[in-house]
Amino acid sequence: MTRPAALPHVVIVGGGFGGLYAARALARRPVRVTLLDRRNHHLFQPLLYQVATAALNPSDIATPLRSVLRKATNITVLLAEIQKVDLANCRLVLDRGEIGYDALVLAAGASHSYFGHDDWEVFAPGLKTLEDALEIRRRVLLAYEAAEREHDGAEQQALLTSVVIGGGPTGVELAGALGEISRQTIARDFRLIDPTKARILLLEGGARILTTFPESLSHSAEDALRRLGVEVRTKAIVTRVTADAVWLGGEQIRARTVLWAAGVAAAPLARTLGAPLDGAGRVLVEPDLSVPGHPEAFAIGDMCAFLHQTGTPLPGVAPVAIQQGRAAADNVLRRLNGQPSRPFRYRDKGSMATIGRAAAVAVVGRLKLSGLIAWLAWLFVHIMFLIGFRNRFLVLFEWAWAYVTWHRGARLITGPWRGRG
Amino acid sequence: MTRPAALPHVVIVGGGFGGLYAARALARRPVRVTLLDRRNHHLFQPLLYQVATAALNPSDIATPLRSVLRKATNITVLLAEIQKVDLANCRLVLDRGEIGYDALVLAAGASHSYFGHDDWEVFAPGLKTLEDALEIRRRVLLAYEAAEREHDGAEQQALLTSVVIGGGPTGVELAGALGEISRQTIARDFRLIDPTKARILLLEGGARILTTFPESLSHSAEDALRRLGVEVRTKAIVTRVTADAVWLGGEQIRARTVLWAAGVAAAPLARTLGAPLDGAGRVLVEPDLSVPGHPEAFAIGDMCAFLHQTGTPLPGVAPVAIQQGRAAADNVLRRLNGQPSRPFRYRDKGSMATIGRAAAVAVVGRLKLSGLIAWLAWLFVHIMFLIGFRNRFLVLFEWAWAYVTWHRGARLITGPWRGRG
Repeated sequence: MTRPAALPHVVIVGGGFGGLYAARALARRPVRVTLLDRRNHHLFQPLLYQVATAALNPSDIATPLRSVLRKATNITVLLAEIQKVDLANCRLVLDRGEIGYDALVLAAGASHSYFGHDDWEVFAPGLKTLEDALEIRRRVLLAYEAAEREHDGAEQQALLTSVVIGGGPTGVELAGALGEISRQTIARDFRLIDPTKARILLLEGGARILTTFPESLSHSAEDALRRLGVEVRTKAIVTRVTADAVWLGGEQIRARTVLWAAGVAAAPLARTLGAPLDGAGRVLVEPDLSVPGHPEAFAIGDMCAFLHQTGTPLPGVAPVAIQQGRAAADNVLRRLNGQPSRPFRYRDKGSMATIGRAAAVAVVGRLKLSGLIAWLAWLFVHIMFLIGFRNRFLVLFEWAWAYVTWHRGARLITGPWRGRG
Repeated sequence: MTRPAALPHVVIVGGGFGGLYAARALARRPVRVTLLDRRNHHLFQPLLYQVATAALNPSDIATPLRSVLRKATNITVLLAEIQKVDLANCRLVLDRGEIGYDALVLAAGASHSYFGHDDWEVFAPGLKTLEDALEIRRRVLLAYEAAEREHDGAEQQALLTSVVIGGGPTGVELAGALGEISRQTIARDFRLIDPTKARILLLEGGARILTTFPESLSHSAEDALRRLGVEVRTKAIVTRVTADAVWLGGEQIRARTVLWAAGVAAAPLARTLGAPLDGAGRVLVEPDLSVPGHPEAFAIGDMCAFLHQTGTPLPGVAPVAIQQGRAAADNVLRRLNGQPSRPFRYRDKGSMATIGRAAAVAVVGRLKLSGLIAWLAWLFVHIMFLIGFRNRFLVLFEWAWAYVTWHRGARLITGPWRGRG
């Protein structure tokens, strides 16, 4: 990667919330920055479930990294796959060639974890990338199409049954959206089946859904899901997933659409560091977010477990990654200036999850919100954090259109035709 | 396919322009209609090149067939693959099961033809489906990304060279859009390469591009393409296509992005009919659009060659398919009522092709238009024929946004990461 070598070189791995906000904080500062990502776009993951459920288009929630950073002429964006981090020699091994650094920010994010059952992935896809979202959209929509053609009653019922595994925010949002699709969006679109009879189950292993929220909000969310026709089952431990069923011990639930929202693990890249990791493969970082023993390398967002504030890892949400990205960039600059680094401290501005039309839950400080007001707060925050006027406008339009017409704008089945299955 | 069998059963194969307009003409008439398609959406193919060149989103130009026909309660839409038409027994063999009919409208469209060189397809994809468009978008955008990482000068030049084969409307539109992308959209997005130095070639085997247009408009289009940096070469016969080059006899053009817009052939389904076909595999239909010897079966749009008006087949464009769809539906009803069928007659309302920003050519009767006025006419006609207010509004917004900012809204590389190449 040939560039004039006068200024110190900072490499950022990953263009998600952590990496992008680190890059922005380094724009027009006296460093050369290279941002590496496997994808050419920043993805607004909090709205990814809306792509999976046909409400938004991929490009509504994704922006090319080059466009976002166009004016930051000290930043070079390269599309690359990182195979290994060589901390001892301050270099990264890429799919082609390698790249050295003076300071490193690792923000490669997380992928799904099936808790040792990787064979479940093919039957129960998770939701992390645009491709995941389009695959889920394809499965959800194809199941109704296959049901319309099916003569066998039991098989038709299996096609009309969806199971979402995992009762965190993503699982709740997916289950709620599936309920809206069956009860409202496509209710009158079929001639031979009745989509409103579709069965949607949300399975949670713990005692209640949305465990990181106060208990009263868990119950509000459960009620809102039930009104959308979703069956919520807690203390439901999945023991097996096959092509057409989910097993809870001896109980079999026949279902053709199974979605995984139960577990995440740090990107496999973390394992190449030789640094201490927690059980989910996350780097156990120092208080200043650096990798132990390597003050020039920082790990942020879903790639790190930050235990120094509450004793447990901070949640894997966008606000944590954004604040860590800015803090890591600041510590990079301090270090290059010979100043001591600063410990990171997360400022919790609240958390929220949406269930469906005019239904959401939110915690802001001591304030607990549910229903319409939480939903409006959710809309406002998500529109504000979307990058770019164009995306904001289009998402607002799609939402307004969906709200008025009860339709969903992106009901396309794309990808290879593989028959039903 | 169980339905009450009181009314005659009309089966329509394909939900493109021909099939959809036939279905609409049969809505609320005394027939049961089943519309079969492999896809769940109607695709507005005239704007497909804009998805391939990152200006529009897939769902901007595609609408679920179920939504379009929701209110036509006598029409059932089924997602199915048709394997064989059994004209003798009035039935279709599907991927699962079969379906009988009293009248049949075949509107399965066309796919690419490589004139016997099917091995070229992998190197030079054509543009017929949304998947094709997304694959082309991926290749076009990835080539610039790979060039930014490339050290070898010759290989970098090959990555920055695109060849469009075929100078009909699709080839002209693709080449013009590629010119706009390199000269305007991404001109300032890279640090190590200069996208405005990218080479774009449009190769046409005949003496001029847009051969179906008057000669003066061919020259206007050529001039407009040259202003966008496109090299237009006529009488250029491609003899070989490989992974990194296009050959014109002994001349080799090194290019990593090659797009095919040279030939089409009727859907392979036509070959299962046992009916007379022309060289492009199209059914040589009777004057009333019926398949010879089968007055209850009609073939329309790109699947048929209609020679009874001008002696040569009508062009494979949307207006022909739309008018034939309506005419076939009318003849189906006449036949079921015991009336004689009517011969089809195409009313040519003109044709147009667009080259880029404020540049297009159009023929309306004896009127020949080029430049801004042809472009405005093109905009107006394409917006009017898009189905659905939502799509019209979003496409207008994307176009206005692109016009003002010079950006393109859908610059996403999706699909599996396969490295460069």
